[in-house]
Amino acid sequence: MNVLVTGAYGFLGRNVCRLFADAGANVSGIGHGDWSFSEYSAYGLKSWVNADITLDALLKCSTAPDIIIHCAGGSSVHASVMHPIADFTATVSSTYAVLEYLKTSFPKAKLVYTSSAAVYGCANKLPISESDALHPVSPYGLHKLFSEQLCRNYAVNHNLDIAIVRLFSIYGPSLKKQLLWDACKRLKSGDSAFFGTGNETRDWLHVKDAVHLLALAAKHADNTCPIVNGGSGMATTNQALLKQLTLALDVPLEPRFNQLTRPGDPQHYQADIAIAQKWGWNAQINLSEGVKEYAKWFSEVTG
Amino acid sequence: MNVLVTGAYGFLGRNVCRLFADAGANVSGIGHGDWSFSEYSAYGLKSWVNADITLDALLKCSTAPDIIIHCAGGSSVHASVMHPIADFTATVSSTYAVLEYLKTSFPKAKLVYTSSAAVYGCANKLPISESDALHPVSPYGLHKLFSEQLCRNYAVNHNLDIAIVRLFSIYGPSLKKQLLWDACKRLKSGDSAFFGTGNETRDWLHVKDAVHLLALAAKHADNTCPIVNGGSGMATTNQALLKQLTLALDVPLEPRFNQLTRPGDPQHYQADIAIAQKWGWNAQINLSEGVKEYAKWFSEVTG
Repeated sequence: MNVLVTGAYGFLGRNVCRLFADAGANVSGIGHGDWSFSEYSAYGLKSWVNADITLDALLKCSTAPDIIIHCAGGSSVHASVMHPIADFTATVSSTYAVLEYLKTSFPKAKLVYTSSAAVYGCANKLPISESDALHPVSPYGLHKLFSEQLCRNYAVNHNLDIAIVRLFSIYGPSLKKQLLWDACKRLKSGDSAFFGTGNETRDWLHVKDAVHLLALAAKHADNTCPIVNGGSGMATTNQALLKQLTLALDVPLEPRFNQLTRPGDPQHYQADIAIAQKWGWNAQINLSEGVKEYAKWFSEVTG
Repeated sequence: MNVLVTGAYGFLGRNVCRLFADAGANVSGIGHGDWSFSEYSAYGLKSWVNADITLDALLKCSTAPDIIIHCAGGSSVHASVMHPIADFTATVSSTYAVLEYLKTSFPKAKLVYTSSAAVYGCANKLPISESDALHPVSPYGLHKLFSEQLCRNYAVNHNLDIAIVRLFSIYGPSLKKQLLWDACKRLKSGDSAFFGTGNETRDWLHVKDAVHLLALAAKHADNTCPIVNGGSGMATTNQALLKQLTLALDVPLEPRFNQLTRPGDPQHYQADIAIAQKWGWNAQINLSEGVKEYAKWFSEVTG
């Protein structure tokens, strides 16, 4: 089986490559990243094309894919606010290229698009189900929505097998950004002051659980373009998460919060995971284990 | 008053320029089109930048706009099906550039986006109102929807004054494409065979009525991004339209139809124009007059 992973250089993409390679697939990758053979082969990649995701670049990927996992795209809400057109190009133009590639060259391949809970924006109710209203706030979320709409349009109108996974807060060792990374650095430096009220909730999902869901989504991909939430189904307050982290890092600090909020910032996320469960999937790694693993990894890499 | 018209070289854009210039505005334009001073000044334009609509190109437009009428974008459903990424760039990337230009340089200007009834796709009921479900079929319609979503996001999140006009079937002298143009050529050559059943309905709006609505929309533009249908409110079957056209052209032929339909092609359009009417607008030029005028113009230009 040939699997093509876009954005394979990124945190999620690397984990996707590892999963499929471990399962015996022939994995190739494309995206931004200056990667030597020994580096990318450590993730199970057989080949790597370092390029913008365009139709021309995709056509240079040597093997005819049976499955495409499209992880490429903007990767930061904050960066998308600062540079919306760059995020737009990274997310939407790349999705367009992948869809044209699928349509024109490999219409029998299965495509999984890694979307985001950011498409929901500020939820009206929790947990959030896939059929809930979509009101993205950030350019990041809006561009993920555009990509979803493109995927659905191509699936329906060109009879392509596509599925969309809306990932919530993905974490795991080697993720060097977002709350856990920032908090580890801060706490280790003796600073326990955090933005927000601490009552914000997020739905944390270990990357290993996430990639299993992506692989499963490839089996469910069809011309109706099913959409599935990728979360644990559990809401965790930032306060509770950071408390766990201080214990795991063995830092004797109590997280404090500045009580500020950014207008329009979604305060609460919790996935309704009934569809994923119907597919036979459930998160296997609970958050307290995952946080301990993350803290251990952080301590190792930062000495 | 300074007015900037994107896509001013096109059929709609030229008519927008003429309207504002006649009202005493200082009109400048940007878009694709190899236009001499004498050519563009005939439409009331004071300046013209022949370029892709990018932020850099917009910044070269000399005057600080009070109003921007964004007409640029892909202009053919059929072309969008053949070359979706080109339509995407023409429509969505240009809208993004205009929005960034508005946000970063002229946040007090009013922006009117010329969208399309194609965002509705196959309507569930007639007439179609602005709050009805949006299920665009063609890339053209999908890209117009993306542009609308961008406009709304910028209006709400950046407190910009924007309005969206969803134009139905715009026509008038000098439009050298779409049904009326193709039908005139066909009928004049003695061919009265047409695609479809003849029972398809369209809502035809004379371009002069359309541009009055665009100018009015500038007055209603605000940070809620109001959306208004631009149609006559009347549904006309293709058979009835073509019958009127044969009479106007004085061609003794009876339109015939091949009874074919394209799967997914919207069959019926009719605008609910209650919102436009609430704004005090109504179409002034009825279709039979408009068709006569069009046939007269066609006969003049084709000898």
